[in-house]
Amino acid sequence: MTTVHHHAPREPAPPGYTSHKPDHLDRLHKIEGRTRGVTRMVADDRYRIDVLTQISAVTHALQQVALGLLDDHIRHCITTATRADPVHAEEKLDELTLALHRMLRL
Amino acid sequence: MTTVHHHAPREPAPPGYTSHKPDHLDRLHKIEGRTRGVTRMVADDRYRIDVLTQISAVTHALQQVALGLLDDHIRHCITTATRADPVHAEEKLDELTLALHRMLRL
Amino acid sequence: MTTVHHHAPREPAPPGYTSHKPDHLDRLHKIEGRTRGVTRMVADDRYRIDVLTQISAVTHALQQVALGLLDDHIRHCITTATRADPVHAEEKLDELTLALHRMLRL
Amino acid sequence: MTTVHHHAPREPAPPGYTSHKPDHLDRLHKIEGRTRGVTRMVADDRYRIDVLTQISAVTHALQQVALGLLDDHIRHCITTATRADPVHAEEKLDELTLALHRMLRL
Repeated sequence: MTTVHHHAPREPAPPGYTSHKPDHLDRLHKIEGRTRGVTRMVADDRYRIDVLTQISAVTHALQQVALGLLDDHIRHCITTATRADPVHAEEKLDELTLALHRMLRL
Repeated sequence: MTTVHHHAPREPAPPGYTSHKPDHLDRLHKIEGRTRGVTRMVADDRYRIDVLTQISAVTHALQQVALGLLDDHIRHCITTATRADPVHAEEKLDELTLALHRMLRL
Repeated sequence: MTTVHHHAPREPAPPGYTSHKPDHLDRLHKIEGRTRGVTRMVADDRYRIDVLTQISAVTHALQQVALGLLDDHIRHCITTATRADPVHAEEKLDELTLALHRMLRL
Repeated sequence: MTTVHHHAPREPAPPGYTSHKPDHLDRLHKIEGRTRGVTRMVADDRYRIDVLTQISAVTHALQQVALGLLDDHIRHCITTATRADPVHAEEKLDELTLALHRMLRL
């Protein structure tokens, strides 16, 4: 949106992050707009069923971004760790399972 | 419809809406802020697992607002229709089931 | 499965339960079969992605039964309580919100 | 962990499958029992809110087994493919993302 500097969090460059980043940011900007729309609907006493429909759509869109990020993470971070450092890979896998646990609401 | 008076922040005000409205708006404003936070995290190439944690929290908060609105809707709109007009009540119930269908991702 | 009698879906009887009961039971018997199928797949070391696909299908089918029961419950139990006894209706509505809370994993 | 042969689904046993397999099977047997319990509750016209509580519990238990299988899959199948064969690994990752897509109901 504004001047965004990405400092490359790991040596060669943010692995794979950049490839889908514009798409993720685009989706997130739309989600921000839709979230403001939900607030406005409640403020305007709009019919609750219509508000619920919007919330379902926003939640779905957020989960899609989450799946995209998860896919990037597995493809790059997990894959790199697996090739480079088995011990580090184990930690990454534990962390990934915890993230999936949260995403699946378990 | 029935004798439900709730001070109405917008002149007539749908029944029951107003009682929890400040709470819903407060939650939604926080959700807007957290959604912008997620966008910023992606823009800044923050660690994806941390972004996923934030998205899980935002999704959860949105679903909580949805449940609150659903509860208001059943308590006021469905209840009123049930007492006043059986045919209208049937339509409201069909609509409610569809909303639940969407919320449960079925 | 057993000797299930469904009386008239209107006046006496457990209200509304009976109307969709054969459908719910039919779905549940299929879900039982599919659940045994999942166990068998794991026992046979079947490819995990295929097991996950089956589990997703079973979970989806279970949620559909849950939505059907919820719909019956709102249409009959909630509606009856609302017409007959406002205090009892409040309790029913609190209970319903709790059930929705669990179903939405909040 | 390293040299992985996934031919015979019986004797040598796919990597990592065996380690958690008794636990998965134990959970699945319990889930089968609870699913039959749900059917019985519906057959016996038990209070629908109580049936819904049981369905929520069964769904949760199924998702936990799914997460366990997913964790096994990523740790063994994905990791092995990543180390051994980059092209095959890409296919495995596409397949994994699709499975996550289904699990998250997207």
